Amino acid sequence: MSVKNKRKVEVCLSPALYRYFENPEAVAVVVDVLRASSAIVTAFMNGAERIIPVGTLEEAAGKKGEGYMVAAERDGLVRDFADFGNSPYNFTPERVKNNFIVYSTTNGTQAIQLASSSHSVVVGAFLNLQALVDYLIKMNRDVLILCAGWKNKFNLEDTLFAGAVADKLLDNENFNTICDSTLASQDLWMIAKDDLRNYIEKAAQRHRLKKNKLDDVIDYCLTLDQTNVIPILENDYLIGLEE
Amino acid sequence: MSVKNKRKVEVCLSPALYRYFENPEAVAVVVDVLRASSAIVTAFMNGAERIIPVGTLEEAAGKKGEGYMVAAERDGLVRDFADFGNSPYNFTPERVKNNFIVYSTTNGTQAIQLASSSHSVVVGAFLNLQALVDYLIKMNRDVLILCAGWKNKFNLEDTLFAGAVADKLLDNENFNTICDSTLASQDLWMIAKDDLRNYIEKAAQRHRLKKNKLDDVIDYCLTLDQTNVIPILENDYLIGLEE
Repeated sequence: MSVKNKRKVEVCLSPALYRYFENPEAVAVVVDVLRASSAIVTAFMNGAERIIPVGTLEEAAGKKGEGYMVAAERDGLVRDFADFGNSPYNFTPERVKNNFIVYSTTNGTQAIQLASSSHSVVVGAFLNLQALVDYLIKMNRDVLILCAGWKNKFNLEDTLFAGAVADKLLDNENFNTICDSTLASQDLWMIAKDDLRNYIEKAAQRHRLKKNKLDDVIDYCLTLDQTNVIPILENDYLIGLEE
Repeated sequence: MSVKNKRKVEVCLSPALYRYFENPEAVAVVVDVLRASSAIVTAFMNGAERIIPVGTLEEAAGKKGEGYMVAAERDGLVRDFADFGNSPYNFTPERVKNNFIVYSTTNGTQAIQLASSSHSVVVGAFLNLQALVDYLIKMNRDVLILCAGWKNKFNLEDTLFAGAVADKLLDNENFNTICDSTLASQDLWMIAKDDLRNYIEKAAQRHRLKKNKLDDVIDYCLTLDQTNVIPILENDYLIGLEE
């Protein structure tokens, strides 16, 4: 396959940069490692039927009134009206199996809505890394990895995940990149991959979670390949695709 | 000095993210290594009196009508009405000594205008790296490094420069950071610094310049510490400060 016909791999480091990467031909991978995308992957791993991402707390509260189970947080803290918050540990089989869950978070769910101008939207986390890569190779389309970041700022953990996906895709002869943020993500992943947990010690979100005593999930969120399930957006909700 | 009283070092990876980093207490360092900030530093090194950065080509053309010497390019190519373009090699002593120069580029001059909401604005390049760091330490203020990037996208060369500045500042006990993009820039600099020229081979802008046969300046732009001059914004023009 000539360079010209290869599928592009691009990394968008912040939702605020999405407009410069928008690509209706691409599969968009939305990632918010700490913690939204790890929680969503966990929910489907534990049998959730649908997750309905909503951007605003008002929408989330409204859905609670309609009888949905609601997960909602801002800045890492569960909101009063919600059934639970953003920790993957909340999405237990007892709670989520065969259920519809409305979900609103600081960064992750807005990124999913933004990415919906792409050909399709999937949710990535270290927990489903290899299955996601296998799926992307099978799809054989351009790939745009959208890092949810923190309030539109770059963050390390999402960038490392983007680097891991890019590194695996670029090992496949059908993909290439001329995107500097992809190359940077890949280089950061090369530094961090042998001791991801230790590298993430310096990340701003690690400090935020620790301050709010929410850092118990970090080890779990940095664990690779726990499931083959890939959350994929259908209309305005996510379902779990078994890869 | 306690952590609380230390000066913040932050890196803004794209002008489109500037609003999330805006800090009226900070010295903003604007960088566009290939090639605007390297050209501006070179101009002052060669005796230019003032550089007037303008955002639009219309403004640049208007200033030409007023009798100014004008440097203007878009996408690396010199514009018809301009005296010369964006290559540092154009800013020779014969042309620039004691002159006022109006300057408009694809990314660099807009970034300077954007940064003007900071306490002060200086222009950085590898050419004046150490002098710039010495100046920033002397100023003892927060530092915000604004990467001009390419059309609001992240680029490798500006990020590496940001990493180099951050790395040197964070060696000083008066500075610290909790900014993930600063930490990432610093890590990328650690990878690249021993062979900067080779690392930049993969950068998108290196390919763009090569395609337009403008890559003759890359070695020069990646050369460290050729001058002590620091371009600083006064009102709406830059002057050269000798550090």
